Amino acid sequence: MAHEPAATLLARVGNDAMAELCAKHPDRFPGFAAALSLHDVDGAVAEARRAVRGLGARGVQIYTNVAGIPLDDPRFGPVFAVAAEHDLPIWLHPARTSAMADYAGESRSRYEMWWCFGWPYETSVAMTRLVFCGLFDRHPGLKIITHHCGGMIPYYDGRIGAGMAFLGSRDKDEDYSKVLPSLKRPHLDYFRDFYGDTAMFGGRAGLKAGLDFFGVDHVIFATDAPLAPIVESIAAVRELGLPPAAAEQVFSGNAKRLLKL
Amino acid sequence: MAHEPAATLLARVGNDAMAELCAKHPDRFPGFAAALSLHDVDGAVAEARRAVRGLGARGVQIYTNVAGIPLDDPRFGPVFAVAAEHDLPIWLHPARTSAMADYAGESRSRYEMWWCFGWPYETSVAMTRLVFCGLFDRHPGLKIITHHCGGMIPYYDGRIGAGMAFLGSRDKDEDYSKVLPSLKRPHLDYFRDFYGDTAMFGGRAGLKAGLDFFGVDHVIFATDAPLAPIVESIAAVRELGLPPAAAEQVFSGNAKRLLKL
Repeated sequence: MAHEPAATLLARVGNDAMAELCAKHPDRFPGFAAALSLHDVDGAVAEARRAVRGLGARGVQIYTNVAGIPLDDPRFGPVFAVAAEHDLPIWLHPARTSAMADYAGESRSRYEMWWCFGWPYETSVAMTRLVFCGLFDRHPGLKIITHHCGGMIPYYDGRIGAGMAFLGSRDKDEDYSKVLPSLKRPHLDYFRDFYGDTAMFGGRAGLKAGLDFFGVDHVIFATDAPLAPIVESIAAVRELGLPPAAAEQVFSGNAKRLLKL
Repeated sequence: MAHEPAATLLARVGNDAMAELCAKHPDRFPGFAAALSLHDVDGAVAEARRAVRGLGARGVQIYTNVAGIPLDDPRFGPVFAVAAEHDLPIWLHPARTSAMADYAGESRSRYEMWWCFGWPYETSVAMTRLVFCGLFDRHPGLKIITHHCGGMIPYYDGRIGAGMAFLGSRDKDEDYSKVLPSLKRPHLDYFRDFYGDTAMFGGRAGLKAGLDFFGVDHVIFATDAPLAPIVESIAAVRELGLPPAAAEQVFSGNAKRLLKL
């Protein structure tokens, strides 16, 4: 314990507090996602096991990069394996700061573009890297809930589908010729294995496109509160005009199924 | 002439060739967009005038950044002014290479993310910067046609609308408190002043969201051929199920109006 990295300790303290909160107010908090520190993969795996088995966590949350390292780095494999082992979802939250500049002539991302569009961009790239590294072939049925309804994937399914079919033709620095043939299914299929949440700041047309892409059983209600308005987020889902059973799936049914509540 | 920057000369040569092509095959090429080099703003303005008045160009094409400098830099003001003066459209094409890395731990953008999602990301940021600098207040009615149906804006209208209403609250490095109050209209309104093209690699749900956002009079047919399939791009518009008059607007009417054909 003395040599445990601080971040792993902090994750454990946080998860203990979440479990306490859920125990105290089960009517408001039916479950929680465990925090993990991927700086310490062994510690993260142990903490995931402890949180799920010992504290009743209903999944784990990770970030789209770990100190600048992408999630397809083999070192993170055990984290996905432990989620698959417990058949519980991974919440994938974007992580980017203004340190990622938008223009070569600027030293940082200005006008808050880093979160507004940078987060969905980073989510899209992380999803693609996870698909291309064969994650869903190694763990069929792995459940990953993507924030902001799947980043840019639903809007740009054509670019990732038909566009990426020519992967390697635009980039000569690396040989990508084996990436798509290494996958068991057409690459666009895997993107529908992800789940998208409804945290869209109340946006309507995007939510509809996200639902069209992922399907009604792969969209999970979420608000992003307190950053985004709860009432508007609910209204946006209602205004999709879904049949009652489908609306119930999005609002709670899918979450109950995934979280095994 | 002897001291004219090479890029301005190249633009002129290119535009002459385009005019020649249009003159030779008017049934196939009813007009062209003039190339400009924004490295040389005075030269670009002069070339825009020459191309429009002398060669019959129906607008100009510019890129989302100029050697890493964003388009809201005041130095580029005259280029937008000359387009407004002629009331002809600006085609805004994304410009980004693998040199823009996706992760702090990588030196370049891998797996062609730089074009697949990087181009729409860069388009979104460029649109935002142009709105925030008051471009549409200085030039009401300015016509800018954005590639790939407006980047991420239609899918994330909630993030830019309700989300950016708190501009400045997430970033303490710069004072953004005067940006939104400096605009004459609510900031999201300006994003609907742009036009979106239909170059979506045949994607359906995104195109629908783009049409919902921009409106039928602000969506212009385009294919991205030869990179993207023409037949699929046509089918995607047809499958929107628009009334015939609206479909005609998207396929040709809006272009004829904007280009004054």
